Order: sequence, then structure tokens, then C-alpha cells
Amino acid sequence: MGISLKDVAARAGVSVKTVSNVVNGYRHVTPATRQRVQQVIDELGYRPNLTARHLRKGRTGIIALALPELGNPYFAELADAVISYAAGLDYIVLLDHTNGRRDQEVLFAQGFRARLIDGLILSPIELENEDLLARGNDAPLVLLGEREYEAPHDHIAIDNVAAARTATRHLLDLGRRRVAFLGARHGRVRRVAHLRLRGWRAAIAESPGAADGDELVAATDGYTRGDGAQAMARLLDSGAAPDAVFCYNDLIAVGAMRTLTERGVRVPEDVAVVGFDDIDDGRYCSTSLTTIAPHKQAIAQAAVDALLARLDGGDEAAQAEPRHIRPGFALIRRESTLGRPLESG
Amino acid sequence: MGISLKDVAARAGVSVKTVSNVVNGYRHVTPATRQRVQQVIDELGYRPNLTARHLRKGRTGIIALALPELGNPYFAELADAVISYAAGLDYIVLLDHTNGRRDQEVLFAQGFRARLIDGLILSPIELENEDLLARGNDAPLVLLGEREYEAPHDHIAIDNVAAARTATRHLLDLGRRRVAFLGARHGRVRRVAHLRLRGWRAAIAESPGAADGDELVAATDGYTRGDGAQAMARLLDSGAAPDAVFCYNDLIAVGAMRTLTERGVRVPEDVAVVGFDDIDDGRYCSTSLTTIAPHKQAIAQAAVDALLARLDGGDEAAQAEPRHIRPGFALIRRESTLGRPLESG
Repeated sequence: MGISLKDVAARAGVSVKTVSNVVNGYRHVTPATRQRVQQVIDELGYRPNLTARHLRKGRTGIIALALPELGNPYFAELADAVISYAAGLDYIVLLDHTNGRRDQEVLFAQGFRARLIDGLILSPIELENEDLLARGNDAPLVLLGEREYEAPHDHIAIDNVAAARTATRHLLDLGRRRVAFLGARHGRVRRVAHLRLRGWRAAIAESPGAADGDELVAATDGYTRGDGAQAMARLLDSGAAPDAVFCYNDLIAVGAMRTLTERGVRVPEDVAVVGFDDIDDGRYCSTSLTTIAPHKQAIAQAAVDALLARLDGGDEAAQAEPRHIRPGFALIRRESTLGRPLESG
Repeated sequence: MGISLKDVAARAGVSVKTVSNVVNGYRHVTPATRQRVQQVIDELGYRPNLTARHLRKGRTGIIALALPELGNPYFAELADAVISYAAGLDYIVLLDHTNGRRDQEVLFAQGFRARLIDGLILSPIELENEDLLARGNDAPLVLLGEREYEAPHDHIAIDNVAAARTATRHLLDLGRRRVAFLGARHGRVRRVAHLRLRGWRAAIAESPGAADGDELVAATDGYTRGDGAQAMARLLDSGAAPDAVFCYNDLIAVGAMRTLTERGVRVPEDVAVVGFDDIDDGRYCSTSLTTIAPHKQAIAQAAVDALLARLDGGDEAAQAEPRHIRPGFALIRRESTLGRPLESG
């Protein structure tokens, strides 16, 4: 039809981003603006036609987002944020899951579907540095998450050490002295949990009188509620006697709280609990979960912006030094550390 | 390279499906088989190359899956199941979210991205029958979920009336007499919740002495934990005095349980709670959640199979009568109706 987002924006007297927000059904648009934009869309008969527009530039208009698993609400919420933000820029997102397996991650990193996509955002779990260096493909690749690499790719991650330190310090500030870490991974020093474990160690080291023994570090096989429930049970049975637990993520924390409840251990009176991710789940637990909230919108935007900068910036941008971008985070204090303000039962 | 899944399967002496399962990292493969297949993959240097194979058939090898939201674990788990099953058949899945908005659903149904995809699986919330009849596009479309249409498309959904009746009867069998329904939608008789509401009514009608007043039906604006928490609060404040609640989905049930806990109402002693969806969340609540478990794997398989049958079957299959496929469901009994078997606290 030849009607573009810009035409709609001009006629409606709003920004292109606002039109895109309306088209994609996102929040942050007032009802009045939404109505005006929708009216112009109807008048002009605007229909998004991404493919044609991108094809003219030799592009597909598709970026791939490869995540370990959608079953983990953190990744589902992050995917939502990436899809929404990319849509606002007229890109669509092909969502892949790697199951957190190295062979799958290598497959994606090395250009599986190269003809189909303009670029790739990958959140690796097991991928090694050598896998990235062996990459025989020049489509832009942006890395997400806690793994650190020495490879020429933009990398978006919050400061995991600082975040874990903040979480642990919160527990120490409440007077806890035996703060356990739940979710280290078996025999994998360079893995994800390492940065958060390092933050835990740093906070403990700064706090005289806080126990720092290895018996307070509990490993898990994965990152699910079930893993957290089992690890908490082992920790209680081991005699480590924690009075607080900092968990690798919210799912592990929710599983740990389930075990504590089953054993009749009170949260937070006997054991305070902090998670990581700020998934919706934690807000509605019977005992709501204190957690570290990475700024998911900022992560999603930084990842898409970094990818498109490489794509759109010409040779200079394509060859610029890789950037390490660190979106922010916040500690969200809830009942699992502060208790319930007013018991009405 | 020219090495196909079939070559690997032949050399390893296993089925193509097994090779695909290994390549995609799925479960249900023994370690021994996985090792044998991986060895052959390494020997032959097999790399999936979906695009070329599908292009020879005039296809893209991509199916789109349009869901209301990924933030809802039910849809995230369903997406996982569809992506996994499609991958086993060498199809990749482009995941879209509609935000449950009619305009977005119309956009997808009417062939947005038609050149990019071979077919579409859509789970509509607000789409109307007329939208489907006006569809100017002949790419196969399979509908998922509780909305019912009189349009020539295959439709995959469990029997929602029977499932809701089973859930409600479970509560009545426990001796509850004031069973509320949480999650009806405001003024939308033909909407999703209607089938589950009908099942609730049927079970109540069969049970002499059970209260059936409209004061026991609580509407929500959406399907989130927050909606459930608010609706439960309104229900308690209204004086309807329920002794049980059947919730439209698990998220609403989790939110409702949070409100009950805040108010000091015991689950299940004072109010028993049943959800719908069997998301992982419900298993690890402080009070684990009784729920209806739709067979998600079966739903995912039926949807992909129906789509590919239309694609692969030639003219005859393409013009066959639309089919209504009803995967099974199960009632999963947990603490929110049965209580905790052994209190160890």
C-alpha cells in the first residue's frame, strides 16, 4: 500500500514510536492518543509490511533471540521485552531455545539460519570462548547475560557481582550471620553462578563475624524450583544451620521457601530468603520474595540497539570495538526478609 | 555438506525422530543412544540446514505461533512444547505475541508475514468469527484454545466444560457448598471463561444443596496473579462467604491464595482452591495448588500435526472438513484442596 508508520505519525501528529506502540498494543499510550492514532490507521488503511521494506535494504527484518529456556519466567519476560522493543523498530524476532546446551549454542552462534536473519542476540550458558572465536559468520552477534568472553561482540549484562553483593549485604544488615548461597553449579568455576558467588563472598568478607565456610554454599544441577527445593533440603540436613539464604535466582528461592515451609522453618524469622530476577511469581508467594530486579526493559533495549547499530552504522560501526553495556538493577525488599508488616490473621 | 538427518539416523541405526531429539537436546533419549548419535553427527559433520531443504519444496520451513502473552507460564510452556515438537519435524517456529488484542489477532490471522511463513497456529482471545471469515489468505491456520468459531479451520482445545465440571465436582465431593468461580470476564458472554463457567454451573446444578447464586461469580479484568488477588479481596469483602474457589487459571488461583493468606483465611480448611493449567508455579506454592492439567504435549503435537497435514496432504487435505481435536486433561490433587498430609512443623 505504501503507507508507512511515518505517514501515520505525521497525520496523527505523534512520533513514529508512539504509532508503533499503538500498533503493537503496548502500554504507555494514553487512551486519547491511542484513539487518535487508531483513527488515522483506519483512515489510511495502514498495514505493517515489514518484509518488503527490509528486502529493499537487503535485509530480512528478522533478528533471532536465542535463550536457554522459555519455561523460566525471567527469560519469558525478557523475550517479551525484546519482542516489544524490536517491533517498535519494525523488526520481528525469531525466538530460539538452546536448552542451555553448548552444542545448541554453538549451532546458533555459528550461523544456523544465517540466510534468514539479520543478526542474533544470544544468552549463552555453556558456550566457550573458543566457540565464539571459531565463528565463521559475520552477522552481528550480541551476547546477553552473566557469562564473560574475550571475543569481539557487544555484551549486555548487569553487574552481577555488585548485585549479589547488594543482596547479601541486605541480609547481613538485618543481623544474619550464617548466610548461605544456593545455586552454585557443580565444579564449574567459570560458569554463570560464579559472579554471583563472588558477590556473596565479597559481602561476607566485609562483614566481621559473618560465617564464610564452604558448607554454606549449596550446588544445584539447574535453575528450577525443584532444584531449589532439593538443595535447601540438603542444606538443612547437612547441619550448616543457615539463618539466611541468597539464591541464584527467584525460581530456586521459591523452591527453597517451599522446603522451609514443609519443614516448619519460618521465613523470615528463622531463615530469611533473597532471590534474583524479580519474576512476577515472587510477588505473589504466600511470603512475598525479596529479590534483585535487573532492569529487563533496559537490557532488551540495549541488546536490540547494539545489534541495529552494527547493522545500520556502515563499516565503521561494524568494526568498532566491542562494547560492554551494564544496565542497572535494584534490590526489591519484601516479606521474605522483612516479614509481614501487619499480620491480620 | 548434503548430510541429512536421515543419513545420521541410518548410520546410527536409530529413527530420524531420535536424531532430531538429540540434535535439539530433548529428553526421552537414553545417554547411550545420545552418545552414539552424537558420535555419528561428529563423524559426518552434520549441520542442520533447514532453509535449503524447505526452499526446494517452495516453503520457508517456518510456522508462526501467535500467543496472547509469554509472561503467562502456561503459554510459555505451550510454546516450548510447540517449538520442540516442530523442531523434531524440521520446522522452526516464529513466535508472536498478540497481547490478546483483537487488532493484533486480526493482523496475524489475515496474513501478516504471509510470505515468510508456511502456516500459522493462533490462540485467540478477542478475535471474532467475522474476522476469520474475512480472511484473505489461504495459508493454513490452526486455532488453539477455548474460543469457539464457525470457520473452516482446524481447532485444538481440551473439553473446557468437562474440565471445569471435574474441578468443581472435586470441591463439592469434599463437602464444600459455596464454591465460587473466579475469573469470569466482564460482560463477555462468548469469551473464553464462558466454557469454564458453564462447567462450574453444571457441577453445581448436579449437586443438591450447593449454592448457585451470581454473588459467587467474580469477574476479573485479565488473567494475572494481580487480577486474582484483587478479585479474591472483592469476593471476601462482598459477604459472599465462599468455602471454596474454582479459578479460571493457576495465576488467578495463586493471586487468590496470596489474598487469603494475607487475610488470615486458611487454605484449604476455610477456603479450598482449584486452578487450571498446571503451571510449575502451582507445584511449589507454600500450599501446593490443586489444578486441571491440560495435556500440553498433546495440544502442541495436535496443532503442528494438523498444520503440516494441511500443508503436506495436497489439495484433498487442504480442502478437507475442519477438524475439532480434543486433547485430554487430568485433575491434579494437591494441598490447596486436600491439606498437607503430614505437618512436620
